[in-house]
Amino acid sequence: MRKVYLAGPEVFLRDAIALGRRKKRLCAEYGFEGLYPFDNEAVPDGSEKRLDLLIYRSNVAMMYDADFGILNLTPFRGPSADVGTVFELGMLAGLGKPVFAYTNDTEDFLVRVKRIDAVRFDAASNVWRDSEDMAIEDFGNTDNLMIDATLAEQGRSVLRRGVTGERRFRDLTGFEACLRLATDIFTPNIRNSLR
Amino acid sequence: MRKVYLAGPEVFLRDAIALGRRKKRLCAEYGFEGLYPFDNEAVPDGSEKRLDLLIYRSNVAMMYDADFGILNLTPFRGPSADVGTVFELGMLAGLGKPVFAYTNDTEDFLVRVKRIDAVRFDAASNVWRDSEDMAIEDFGNTDNLMIDATLAEQGRSVLRRGVTGERRFRDLTGFEACLRLATDIFTPNIRNSLR
Repeated sequence: MRKVYLAGPEVFLRDAIALGRRKKRLCAEYGFEGLYPFDNEAVPDGSEKRLDLLIYRSNVAMMYDADFGILNLTPFRGPSADVGTVFELGMLAGLGKPVFAYTNDTEDFLVRVKRIDAVRFDAASNVWRDSEDMAIEDFGNTDNLMIDATLAEQGRSVLRRGVTGERRFRDLTGFEACLRLATDIFTPNIRNSLR
Repeated sequence: MRKVYLAGPEVFLRDAIALGRRKKRLCAEYGFEGLYPFDNEAVPDGSEKRLDLLIYRSNVAMMYDADFGILNLTPFRGPSADVGTVFELGMLAGLGKPVFAYTNDTEDFLVRVKRIDAVRFDAASNVWRDSEDMAIEDFGNTDNLMIDATLAEQGRSVLRRGVTGERRFRDLTGFEACLRLATDIFTPNIRNSLR
């Protein structure tokens, strides 16, 4: 059974473990095994005192083990996705693994920055600038170009869906759409031919 | 000559190209060739219309070409580092390349989130929570644990230095400290033995 690494800022929710279980159940329905950061609850074995390093090693081991990743890129504490999730997107791409991604925010990156900062259009250089005079990307992407282009290079895009309030980090409609896309790619026939 | 990929949010500054030249000159002083995203200014060749994809491909090609990376993880548009830079940290780690990093902010991640958000200590679960009730990491790190742990696993830490105002994204003291660390590792003797 193909394994999928599940990344997203929902690990910071109070109900992180329950949400992980929901994601893993959905994975199973689509024929995949979901690997969720809380699975290997890092337990110090005495040789390493730093809990953060134990969590890191557990997550990295799961990424190496995974056949592909599904990432929740919903904006978190600012106009961009959670940096932990983005790090994992980069690592999965560096490892050459397919990635699928969703965000529970429909807006373009530029629109979101406009909402939270005093931006202005710099006609001389033909770019929007934030209050620190730094250019704001305007490619119609959901986030920084390195993120959207990773998906585009694999023939996909970051799936967008507008979800607000309590369900913003919990709605799994986009997640399930990613699973559906993954089954299109990892069909049994393709799976067998790859072995 | 060893090549180093130079990542950071300074690419969004008005003087991004001048700053890249300064970084590359410093690299040369330490015996390295700096690869800066603005070097290969993406010029559409007609086969690909999307400028963001051209920039992505150019950056990824430079990361594959580089022997190691130096990343500017100064907080950008929120409590965390620029997601483009963090993506590149993840990709370099996935490619198995050494990374060095600096931030022009001395504070721990938790302290920074406290400054910009209404946080409270949740005694029942023994964690700090932000205004969205999401846990805030408290490992004494500069940022999300995946970032600091990447450096720690390579025997290093994110170098911190407090720089405010105009120089926050321009001061290269931490950058030069990374170069010095890199020369300790990539000495001529080690370079020759690796060939």
